[in-house]
Amino acid sequence: MLQYPQALIRLIAHFKKLPGVGQKSAERFALHLLDWKEGDLFQMSEAVSTLKAGVITCECCGAWREASGCSLCEDNTRDSSLIAVVATPKEIYTIEQTGQFRGRYYVLGGLLSPMQGRSPDTLRIEPLKEQIIKQSVGEIILALDATIEGDATSLFLQRELSGMSAISRLAFGLPIGSALEYIDEGSLSEAFIGRRPYSLAQ
Amino acid sequence: MLQYPQALIRLIAHFKKLPGVGQKSAERFALHLLDWKEGDLFQMSEAVSTLKAGVITCECCGAWREASGCSLCEDNTRDSSLIAVVATPKEIYTIEQTGQFRGRYYVLGGLLSPMQGRSPDTLRIEPLKEQIIKQSVGEIILALDATIEGDATSLFLQRELSGMSAISRLAFGLPIGSALEYIDEGSLSEAFIGRRPYSLAQ
Repeated sequence: MLQYPQALIRLIAHFKKLPGVGQKSAERFALHLLDWKEGDLFQMSEAVSTLKAGVITCECCGAWREASGCSLCEDNTRDSSLIAVVATPKEIYTIEQTGQFRGRYYVLGGLLSPMQGRSPDTLRIEPLKEQIIKQSVGEIILALDATIEGDATSLFLQRELSGMSAISRLAFGLPIGSALEYIDEGSLSEAFIGRRPYSLAQ
Repeated sequence: MLQYPQALIRLIAHFKKLPGVGQKSAERFALHLLDWKEGDLFQMSEAVSTLKAGVITCECCGAWREASGCSLCEDNTRDSSLIAVVATPKEIYTIEQTGQFRGRYYVLGGLLSPMQGRSPDTLRIEPLKEQIIKQSVGEIILALDATIEGDATSLFLQRELSGMSAISRLAFGLPIGSALEYIDEGSLSEAFIGRRPYSLAQ
């Protein structure tokens, strides 16, 4: 069987590690790069090798920030009495896209998962407590996955932080645009439990 | 709107240039790379920057080869009296996967396309003629796309090489696994024109 040159095989192997990329797509990507200009390849190469150095974790909120500073922590228009606790920095971008939340964020660093050996000491709990006290936080919003890991972590945080601040968790229910007919039982049960008074004025 | 750190934005821009990769996939790829080990990032970076240096074009057949030599040209079990003419090196791998062809290859370097300004002098024609004479080639198989560009290039080569060797072109017809109901008229017409005597012994 005719093999690609080693330089192509190596690059294909790297592309195959990306999420959702199989052998065929990885080959397509690598062959496409062969058509790029040498300068573009060099720039991409540098973007890959300098990636981690350019993405710094804010010591305060745990979000990604530039070397120059954290645009979230330095934004004085944000409400410091409200903290959304997220598992990883990625989720901050998802929440920001809604434009719904103007408080502060706090990145926990993961979710509890006994299966994957993630115990409470792998999470950033103590600095969160300190912030709650220092900033006189009024409400902690647990913005965690609606999964077993998210449930376990929420329960754990509820116990750890109880008495320090009001604690809420994001609502469960029907995703917007969904038809009742196709909704899973779990979400539908939660939608019943979490039903809200309905009036035209709302 | 909260922006990703510049290092991420840069990498996302590079991934977006890959075929079939939009903003969302590019973000997913870049965020995935953030979880890679520094050593893996360095290796991928090097694979990108050294790609072109590691993929050499064989001066003889035009296929990609290692610095050590061309595995196609040096393979003495291949039939030198049979040359498959392909547009680009990629297509050699596609043909090799069929296991159907054991002759030599010749990479033309593209297809004629007046629309994209690809005239005959952008193709490697003269070395092909020399090889036909030197290797006393018996048949030239035009293994070119079934497109307007492929047709134009086939016509051109037919005129250029006529009298030097027998010339054939890959068959057109029904793709294996296709249902007549869904086949396009062009392929179905060609399948009628190219119909072959049918017997159980075949």
